[in-house]
Amino acid sequence: MSSSTTSHARAVDSARVIEDLRELARRTGDEAGAQRLCWSETWRSAREFLGDRTGELGMELETDEAGNAWAYLEGEAPDEPALAVGSHTDSVPDGGWLDGALGVMAAVGVLRSWVESGEKPPRTIALVDFADEEGARFGRSLFGSSVVSGDLDPADMAGSRDSEGRTAAAVLAENGVELERAPEASARLERVGAFLEIHIEQGPVLSDDGASLAAVRGCVGIERLRFVFTGQASHAGTTPMDRRNDAGLAAAKAALAIERVASATGGKGVATTGRIDLRPGIVTAVAGEAELSVDLRHPDADGPARMLMDARRAAEAAADERGCEVREEPIWSIDPTHFDDALVARASEAAGGRVMTSGALHDAAEMARRVPTAMLFVPSIGGISHAAVEDTAEEDLAAGIEAFGRLADAVLLDLG
Amino acid sequence: MSSSTTSHARAVDSARVIEDLRELARRTGDEAGAQRLCWSETWRSAREFLGDRTGELGMELETDEAGNAWAYLEGEAPDEPALAVGSHTDSVPDGGWLDGALGVMAAVGVLRSWVESGEKPPRTIALVDFADEEGARFGRSLFGSSVVSGDLDPADMAGSRDSEGRTAAAVLAENGVELERAPEASARLERVGAFLEIHIEQGPVLSDDGASLAAVRGCVGIERLRFVFTGQASHAGTTPMDRRNDAGLAAAKAALAIERVASATGGKGVATTGRIDLRPGIVTAVAGEAELSVDLRHPDADGPARMLMDARRAAEAAADERGCEVREEPIWSIDPTHFDDALVARASEAAGGRVMTSGALHDAAEMARRVPTAMLFVPSIGGISHAAVEDTAEEDLAAGIEAFGRLADAVLLDLG
Repeated sequence: MSSSTTSHARAVDSARVIEDLRELARRTGDEAGAQRLCWSETWRSAREFLGDRTGELGMELETDEAGNAWAYLEGEAPDEPALAVGSHTDSVPDGGWLDGALGVMAAVGVLRSWVESGEKPPRTIALVDFADEEGARFGRSLFGSSVVSGDLDPADMAGSRDSEGRTAAAVLAENGVELERAPEASARLERVGAFLEIHIEQGPVLSDDGASLAAVRGCVGIERLRFVFTGQASHAGTTPMDRRNDAGLAAAKAALAIERVASATGGKGVATTGRIDLRPGIVTAVAGEAELSVDLRHPDADGPARMLMDARRAAEAAADERGCEVREEPIWSIDPTHFDDALVARASEAAGGRVMTSGALHDAAEMARRVPTAMLFVPSIGGISHAAVEDTAEEDLAAGIEAFGRLADAVLLDLG
Repeated sequence: MSSSTTSHARAVDSARVIEDLRELARRTGDEAGAQRLCWSETWRSAREFLGDRTGELGMELETDEAGNAWAYLEGEAPDEPALAVGSHTDSVPDGGWLDGALGVMAAVGVLRSWVESGEKPPRTIALVDFADEEGARFGRSLFGSSVVSGDLDPADMAGSRDSEGRTAAAVLAENGVELERAPEASARLERVGAFLEIHIEQGPVLSDDGASLAAVRGCVGIERLRFVFTGQASHAGTTPMDRRNDAGLAAAKAALAIERVASATGGKGVATTGRIDLRPGIVTAVAGEAELSVDLRHPDADGPARMLMDARRAAEAAADERGCEVREEPIWSIDPTHFDDALVARASEAAGGRVMTSGALHDAAEMARRVPTAMLFVPSIGGISHAAVEDTAEEDLAAGIEAFGRLADAVLLDLG
């Protein structure tokens, strides 16, 4: 391990990483934002760009059975646990340039720092670009990382369809992924001893506080569901007000009450009702049915479940008040994720002591099921993400990328 | 005018009318309801059925430049003002069997009563089946009747698109209607001295009171518009509750307040918020924009305008509270319609004295702009319409159809 120094000569060149990010944005984005929707041609061109970069460093970019891309820089102890670093290149439609791409290009920066130093790292470093983190096409986020972690049986989503009616099985097959064989990708973790990811915060906390960096101790737990209210559709003109069972107004009342459920958590939990669908959904009819999508998040172990109970009571009260029925359709839930204490401590050192919980999910949350994991966050200006205007001050990007390099070095030493 | 008696031999045969209605429902409906969406193949087959029925009576069914169908039974004074009777055969998708069809088939019944009696009516009777009363495809209801009345310049809707993105101009052209020439159809009214329509109430008032029939004195005025709330789209997980500008919740709050605007009218006005569209409209995002459709109805001259002012104040307050903006997009408005006093008195005699205001619009509201008009209503069981279960007790249908025949006779005598 003589060469595993943290010498200045081998610091990550943040300017090169930022240059790569800008070039990727030029190649795969337009004025509406990043267009790296997973499994699309633009996403494949982002992968080609990544392959060019790892190729320049003498590493082949391999694709696993779940569509994740890997590049390995062999270390001095190639049979010992490796360090994995990465994130995702896919974006939502009209997305931001940094969401996911930052973590992948910073990982390239870590590999480049070793290759250009001429030294071998003490352990193998594996770069990973997870497939379909966003889930923007088939509704299941963290696809690649959750197949690798064993958390998703991909057969469950074979029949999912995109907005054009094409099945996930067909679209993934076009990208060389056979859903049945996808779980074989989990073998990639057998050699991984730790996972590190740097990502933009996607919220306003760091930006508001003027902080440029934070370690992440874990991700909130989530309860995601639909409340479906059933009343009686009727004619807007001929139904007296006192004879209505307006499912839309029951949903409206419930949405406002669910907001109060979050406010009552003292700033810890958040609740969002981002979609309401009324049926028949026309201006001339009282709604007979209303679907309200609900997303509840809380960092504590029993937090999401408590919020769900309160939301349920609010929905039932809103339904009762209007003579409507309400039923619940679960969409998805995940317990809060707690990253590895020792790695979070290392990340906190690299980040200057600040530690926070992520309100968004990341591939790191899936990795944490199998291997010690930690993350770094850089600020999102104005807290905005998933939009063309998503941005981070250049000095914050640089500070984050350089800290990520120091963190990787420290963890390589720990593993060694 | 010797033959213009109201002898029993020439009463409308309500059983035949009901038989025609059931046959029409079989031919143009399915288990989900009536499928006579205007300009569709099923609607054209309803027109064929109507043509067969008028053909059996020796009358050709003519289509005017706006797509309305007319059949004329010549009277003893063919150059004097005629009596028009009718309604519409088109339905909403998954509609009811009686909405519109009742008035058309009852009109066939009136013609049949004269033809089978061997007598000539004192004045010509014109049956009319107005095109696209529902407006279910291009959003403009009362199309055919408002072109005839001169209230709609059809050029204004040339660019309207249906849910498949096809323009009104293209779809109507397939049905033989050139929008530019459509206004020529208004010449059909030059010979019309009165218009009568029988329709289902589409509300619960008669059904609740156990009444089987009512005359209609006019239609409520309507203000129809959208409030568009603009906030800030943001991530459901990373945006603290106190940093949100949730346009969806502003719309929800406004919807509940607009309901109270109607309740405050003491039972006269109704308000409906039948559609809410959130953008981006996904479970993982706070809504940055929300469109709330609003329909306000009131029978008094200044009623709809007063309700609109109150609704506007409510929308602005809801927006302010969340740091959102709100703008208003008018969709359509119509003043309250008052039918002809003398004809309403005749209708009231035929209906046994009960008179009410219609909360729904009907082709009669457009006809009333040009010719003396009145209507009859029969009950809708449970007040339900625009649905497969829409129904009227058979004895109420029969009573209504027979009263319509008596009303037509009385008005023919008045015209004579």
